[in-house]
Amino acid sequence: MAPAAREATRRRVLDATVRTLAAQGFTGTTARSIATTGGFAAGVIYYHFTDLDELFAATVRHVSETQLEQYRADTEGVDSAVELVERLRALYTAAGADRYVAAVQELFAAAHASTGLAEEVRAATTRWQDYAEATIRRLVEGTPFADLVPVREAAVTAVAAFLGVEMLTHLDPGLVDPAGLFDAAARAAALLDATRLL
Amino acid sequence: MAPAAREATRRRVLDATVRTLAAQGFTGTTARSIATTGGFAAGVIYYHFTDLDELFAATVRHVSETQLEQYRADTEGVDSAVELVERLRALYTAAGADRYVAAVQELFAAAHASTGLAEEVRAATTRWQDYAEATIRRLVEGTPFADLVPVREAAVTAVAAFLGVEMLTHLDPGLVDPAGLFDAAARAAALLDATRLL
Repeated sequence: MAPAAREATRRRVLDATVRTLAAQGFTGTTARSIATTGGFAAGVIYYHFTDLDELFAATVRHVSETQLEQYRADTEGVDSAVELVERLRALYTAAGADRYVAAVQELFAAAHASTGLAEEVRAATTRWQDYAEATIRRLVEGTPFADLVPVREAAVTAVAAFLGVEMLTHLDPGLVDPAGLFDAAARAAALLDATRLL
Repeated sequence: MAPAAREATRRRVLDATVRTLAAQGFTGTTARSIATTGGFAAGVIYYHFTDLDELFAATVRHVSETQLEQYRADTEGVDSAVELVERLRALYTAAGADRYVAAVQELFAAAHASTGLAEEVRAATTRWQDYAEATIRRLVEGTPFADLVPVREAAVTAVAAFLGVEMLTHLDPGLVDPAGLFDAAARAAALLDATRLL
């Protein structure tokens, strides 16, 4: 197979895995159910991945990198907190984003069972912590909070809060109201931006 | 069996379930492994619970209520943020608390698989959100933040962040440094308390 075709097929397997995880959960995600979702033979999976463990690890990396690239592109250079909150809201509510989130949620919950998966989850978490740190640092620069906010700790907490919110909404949409959280964040952001004028 | 003896045995089963979940994970927690941990016959479990689903649901309730009672008792009436952070740090690092947290982590991750378990997880989460809301409201009262902080949203986010931190430390202790987060919270708390004097 030509490299481009090979890469396209690998990508189809990863996308089918994401969709299957989101719809059927970790325990319902087998080679057979992934193949059914993607409309290909189960053998295609094993042409690209040694086993499901390797596929799940690759899926975490794929989702994390795809989403992180999008987040970086859409929030690059944004130093207004209000603007940032609106960009994050748009990213969060973008078509298909919920599927990525649900798939990652399933894989995080299953990570303790697989060393390779846990390794990718760790790496992905660290990259999101770094992204959050750079973003928060840019936001507080030029405000009275620049020397007060412990940026790394705030970033680690933000990533943890995001994961926790996802875990809870995944369990029961009534436990957390993400739209309400964005509204509250928008009001806090307006206050933060106002201090930049002082 | 006399009611007191019956209750003591039920409690022993719940404690053994917590210890088994913490040590062996959800998939390793069977009637047999719980019985081995507790030093009783597996039949004792079925004297008190219809099946493992019911036992797991009861365990979430038991852990949540036991811990919440302790948190309420130790933080009741505390309206200094600095004092609150130190009390929370002590609760978090108390002997045995890590075992409760690990057990709950396993049950939250497994909750989608069982309706009864999910129901208890939902109820427990709501109670902790209510506790966090009352605590945060008390903290910001009398500060310039009283009218600015959206208390319910802050409480929901705090509970989500706690769950996320637990999920990450459970996965890899290197991903989050709870002691560092408490230190950062202590510094923020000192600033909040200072505004109370204004």
